[in-house]
Amino acid sequence: MIDSIRQMISVSDDETQLLKQLFTEKHIKKGEHFLSEGQVCRTVAIISSGLVRYYVNDDGNDGTYYFGSEGNFVCDYESFLPQVPSTKNIQALEDTSLYIISYDGLQQLYQGIKEGERLGRLGIEQVFVNVLQQLTSFYKDSPEERYRRFLQSYSGISQRVPQYYIASYVGIKPQSLSRIRKRAAQQH
Amino acid sequence: MIDSIRQMISVSDDETQLLKQLFTEKHIKKGEHFLSEGQVCRTVAIISSGLVRYYVNDDGNDGTYYFGSEGNFVCDYESFLPQVPSTKNIQALEDTSLYIISYDGLQQLYQGIKEGERLGRLGIEQVFVNVLQQLTSFYKDSPEERYRRFLQSYSGISQRVPQYYIASYVGIKPQSLSRIRKRAAQQH
Repeated sequence: MIDSIRQMISVSDDETQLLKQLFTEKHIKKGEHFLSEGQVCRTVAIISSGLVRYYVNDDGNDGTYYFGSEGNFVCDYESFLPQVPSTKNIQALEDTSLYIISYDGLQQLYQGIKEGERLGRLGIEQVFVNVLQQLTSFYKDSPEERYRRFLQSYSGISQRVPQYYIASYVGIKPQSLSRIRKRAAQQH
Repeated sequence: MIDSIRQMISVSDDETQLLKQLFTEKHIKKGEHFLSEGQVCRTVAIISSGLVRYYVNDDGNDGTYYFGSEGNFVCDYESFLPQVPSTKNIQALEDTSLYIISYDGLQQLYQGIKEGERLGRLGIEQVFVNVLQQLTSFYKDSPEERYRRFLQSYSGISQRVPQYYIASYVGIKPQSLSRIRKRAAQQH
């Protein structure tokens, strides 16, 4: 975890000690939730191993809109930043290990680490560009094209995600995804 | 412009001078583009007066996915951050005045202003939460609900945006938006 932070900013030895104090390890079993609708998201996490999905509830139907795996931040910023109840759910799709930092801990990081604010900016920029690509894809891409984008964006983990969550992410029914996959297979 | 920055971070007198050097004024006439597909987005702007829309091209059909008005940042981060050609368009819907800063200028701001990185983080956090709400809305909300969210998110400017751009933002045809508006009017 310290290594992945060092790839983004420079950290002194004293600051490394502070980082070790601010982050703690957490383990979530497959199927368990990191965050449930109605809870306030009180921590940001970095995944050291495992896989999570983000989803919203639509009258009992899940809408899966994001996946996170090794090295990714896990957080519902919409709840975390203003510290208000979340409208999202974050669930482990595999046994998942994370390093977590609390809201107050993050403010300490911003103040106590020289390049802390820079880390915050770079971290959110990464996530932001992903979300932006996904949003604009709804305005211009066909389901086939959105599935192709999923495979690109999540090239390392697409084999680990069940097909019905991929269909949900693309915004189509599982049967339609099967047809798209079959057509793509025939073309190769 | 300096005032809106002062609302987010503290700025010394020397730093105010630097800010004044880094930002320059720009005016765009109604209908003109701040950014066109294929160009690299080389500046971030703050709108002092006016209104812009962000859109993607889908085989000749516009998909309008965002609006910006007084006090908002204007930028295609997906192009700006890595300095690669944009897949987006940003067009003035009214005569628009902006304060712009170049990519290099922004790096100077991050380095030369004590709380510059903090400003960058807070700025992108604001935009990020908006984009996230809009993305998840596609996974759980009906067109009626998305139109209601548009009116909430853009309460100050909804009267200034032509109906066909609102329909595009909601993801429906203008005729469908007319029906939704008629139903909403009857309920009040």
